[in-house]
Amino acid sequence: MKPLKNAISPTRGENYAEWYQQVIRAADLAENSPVRGCMIIKPWGYAIWEQMQAALDRMIKETGHVNAYFPLFIPKSFFEKEATHVQGFAKECAVVTHSRLVANGSGGLMPAAPLEEELIVRPTSETIIGESFSRWVQSYRDLPLLINQWANVVRWEMRTRLFLRTTEFLWQEGHTAHASSEEALEEAMRMLDVYRVFAEEYMAMPVLRGRKPESERFPGAVETFAIEAMMQDGKALQAGTSHFLGQNFARACNIQFADPNGKMTYAWTTSWGVATRLIGGLVMVHADDDGLVLPPRLAPQQIVILPILHASGEAREILNYCEALREQLCMKIFHGQPIRVLIDIRDRRGGEKSWEWIKKGVPIRVEVGMRERQSEQVSIMRRDGGQKFSLPVGEFAEGVESLLNDIQKSLLRRAIEFKAQKSMHIKTYAEFENFFCDGGGFAETFFSFDAEAEEKIRSMGITPRCIPFATESQTGPCFVHPTRLGKLIIWAKTY
Amino acid sequence: MKPLKNAISPTRGENYAEWYQQVIRAADLAENSPVRGCMIIKPWGYAIWEQMQAALDRMIKETGHVNAYFPLFIPKSFFEKEATHVQGFAKECAVVTHSRLVANGSGGLMPAAPLEEELIVRPTSETIIGESFSRWVQSYRDLPLLINQWANVVRWEMRTRLFLRTTEFLWQEGHTAHASSEEALEEAMRMLDVYRVFAEEYMAMPVLRGRKPESERFPGAVETFAIEAMMQDGKALQAGTSHFLGQNFARACNIQFADPNGKMTYAWTTSWGVATRLIGGLVMVHADDDGLVLPPRLAPQQIVILPILHASGEAREILNYCEALREQLCMKIFHGQPIRVLIDIRDRRGGEKSWEWIKKGVPIRVEVGMRERQSEQVSIMRRDGGQKFSLPVGEFAEGVESLLNDIQKSLLRRAIEFKAQKSMHIKTYAEFENFFCDGGGFAETFFSFDAEAEEKIRSMGITPRCIPFATESQTGPCFVHPTRLGKLIIWAKTY
Repeated sequence: MKPLKNAISPTRGENYAEWYQQVIRAADLAENSPVRGCMIIKPWGYAIWEQMQAALDRMIKETGHVNAYFPLFIPKSFFEKEATHVQGFAKECAVVTHSRLVANGSGGLMPAAPLEEELIVRPTSETIIGESFSRWVQSYRDLPLLINQWANVVRWEMRTRLFLRTTEFLWQEGHTAHASSEEALEEAMRMLDVYRVFAEEYMAMPVLRGRKPESERFPGAVETFAIEAMMQDGKALQAGTSHFLGQNFARACNIQFADPNGKMTYAWTTSWGVATRLIGGLVMVHADDDGLVLPPRLAPQQIVILPILHASGEAREILNYCEALREQLCMKIFHGQPIRVLIDIRDRRGGEKSWEWIKKGVPIRVEVGMRERQSEQVSIMRRDGGQKFSLPVGEFAEGVESLLNDIQKSLLRRAIEFKAQKSMHIKTYAEFENFFCDGGGFAETFFSFDAEAEEKIRSMGITPRCIPFATESQTGPCFVHPTRLGKLIIWAKTY
Repeated sequence: MKPLKNAISPTRGENYAEWYQQVIRAADLAENSPVRGCMIIKPWGYAIWEQMQAALDRMIKETGHVNAYFPLFIPKSFFEKEATHVQGFAKECAVVTHSRLVANGSGGLMPAAPLEEELIVRPTSETIIGESFSRWVQSYRDLPLLINQWANVVRWEMRTRLFLRTTEFLWQEGHTAHASSEEALEEAMRMLDVYRVFAEEYMAMPVLRGRKPESERFPGAVETFAIEAMMQDGKALQAGTSHFLGQNFARACNIQFADPNGKMTYAWTTSWGVATRLIGGLVMVHADDDGLVLPPRLAPQQIVILPILHASGEAREILNYCEALREQLCMKIFHGQPIRVLIDIRDRRGGEKSWEWIKKGVPIRVEVGMRERQSEQVSIMRRDGGQKFSLPVGEFAEGVESLLNDIQKSLLRRAIEFKAQKSMHIKTYAEFENFFCDGGGFAETFFSFDAEAEEKIRSMGITPRCIPFATESQTGPCFVHPTRLGKLIIWAKTY
């Protein structure tokens, strides 16, 4: 069955960046659109996003948040309120200036009806949601205010890449306001941990949780926390961020509350988000040279049944057998939900269909032909590797939940091992240079945050990713200036 | 309990338009934003939208469609491709002309980096999705192509009204391509019927299904079908539309397929959508002078339990009793889902809390105080009217599904009766004028589609709503020109 050649060309080893594009194409996840930097998320890619949304939405609601929806447009004057914030986003803003098109006299159209005030298509919503919060929050009794929004946002990126960096992307953005600094910090940490749990338990993607160095902070934030994941080329992907905004945006947007003594105080706010970028991470953590590999919890179809129809006389019997199997499997519960099973009855060659589902990353493929029908067996192939094997149909159905669990776990285990292999504690600058010449990965160093040294390292395409919480209290001699004391920080190339 | 005064002022009878705004405010559904014409959908309003989305999304998928996502921006040149289409939307387009903001020298910002080609924020996506379809469709084997998108769209409206007409709104837009005219027509009709079923079975809102007269067609469509609902002021709300686009957009976007003989043919396409406007319809069909009234199937909370705590010593016992009741109710299934129950433990006066849930439209309120605890009873209030009544707690839990069903049905029945009362078959123009002077509603007439007469009627704020399918074959003397033969058409004032 398995040809000598891999389904994806080039392979990861040959050209990682191109391999990534080809996996997305082979799995039919998304494509570039004629609109600069905007992508089209195709049905299989969108179905993965729907699975992600469903799980994240549940987790966000379980931590006490409610969803709402705020305007797509931000008046320019709102945007100007937080100085650091506007600096961070002004360079990549889509600006709406007119509200009408009229004939231009040569058969085309031109903008008309200029707006009194230009509108920015939201790159993020702190300032427009802050305006609402300033009206909704009056007293300490109105706090905490815990809101989430699912939305599209626009950042005018010059170099785009499907899912990882696109002009328009889909995301959720949480925005909360609190009566104390401690509570807001706690919230920012809580939501980062929600992201970690989601990454590990759903995406099977291990992540580092940590604090961003100042140079990598969200524009306007007091602290930015992030989860960082390692891709198969050893680069880091910032998979989710959570910001403690202090009173910066409360001041800019005038979010004040009367405390129990009647004293007016600015609230403390947070914001946190993950985006369709996670789909890019999913690809880069698990896909192989045959295409996508989906963790069962996020697979739009967890099992595909492929009927093998050689003689036309057998078709009805085999299809009935497949249908009975599908019904049996759909009754089973995996991680709280009925198992998602598809029978691929399309009139195409079996090998062609099988390869399509391999490339789309479906966790389990089941072949059912006359031989399987007669012996009451099924032939099973796991997408995460291993040989084809046969099982009595009853035994397969009985054990399918633990089989899916095993796949989910083995993907996480493999990713954890890979991350461990490509992570190294580094003591000297020479070691550091060698590490990145030699394939790279996550370099853990003590660093004294010398701006000049950081700049030099950045020029090599390596950035400080985060100061991991787990080792935040540790200090040691800086790998650049050994006489200075440094904190433990992770460096990596990134997207 | 019930005060002499209604919770909403003015009442429907006093000032319907203002009553509508006040119901939305009292139920905390949405508010106007500082961005012209854009609304903020607040958590309770958004939770209703989530219920609508979940039900509609399931129905759309069950009819074979898959979700995908296309760019927010449409290049101006795409937009120009379908002449009628662009005429229909050019007057209300948000136009993006720049991709950057820079300092203007006086402390503010101004647009910079003008785009080579202006982008339109999608008012609807036929032309941008059509571009994808032209690449995705090659052969008859690729058809039908059945895609749906959940998205925000922007139409620069001059006179806006929360939910009913806003500059930005949320919707789903289905877009399909077919190998024959018949199949595309069938699809457009099928999806209109999905909307009818949703309106009737979920929203408890009876609708007329029919064909739009030419003057009311979607720009670029060959036929527009719609469901029209009657609001409590007798006006019509176009609640959903489904368009048979013929080959118009296929020609404009070059969607061609090779038929089985290899001949290239333009596909036949459809599009169909419903929007957050439905929430406005829900308000105007069911709300009363005390606020919102939600049909159980769409209520974010179907039951609210209100603990009545007089003496502090009783609190723990009563709250435990409430929690046990909640757990019991959550085990019950209503329309395929666990019943949604909230215990309102906030530290506020019972009357205040009760009124809040009345205004928010929760179908069932349950009061539990020491008296109820001791007698193992609960006091029950239905939002759709009727007296408060008591039931043994076990009996209530046992019958709760049929109670919710009864509320759902009674709301639909009441709306059907109202619609019947305010609908009239009208034979003469004099009768027609009297009908609309006398409160109005749905006027059913035979009409010969005389443009001059239509214009005159339109100047009275009355528009032809649809030619109902149920009576499409009937003809009779035109109510304006009795010597001419007309078709049965419905007239109404509208939003």
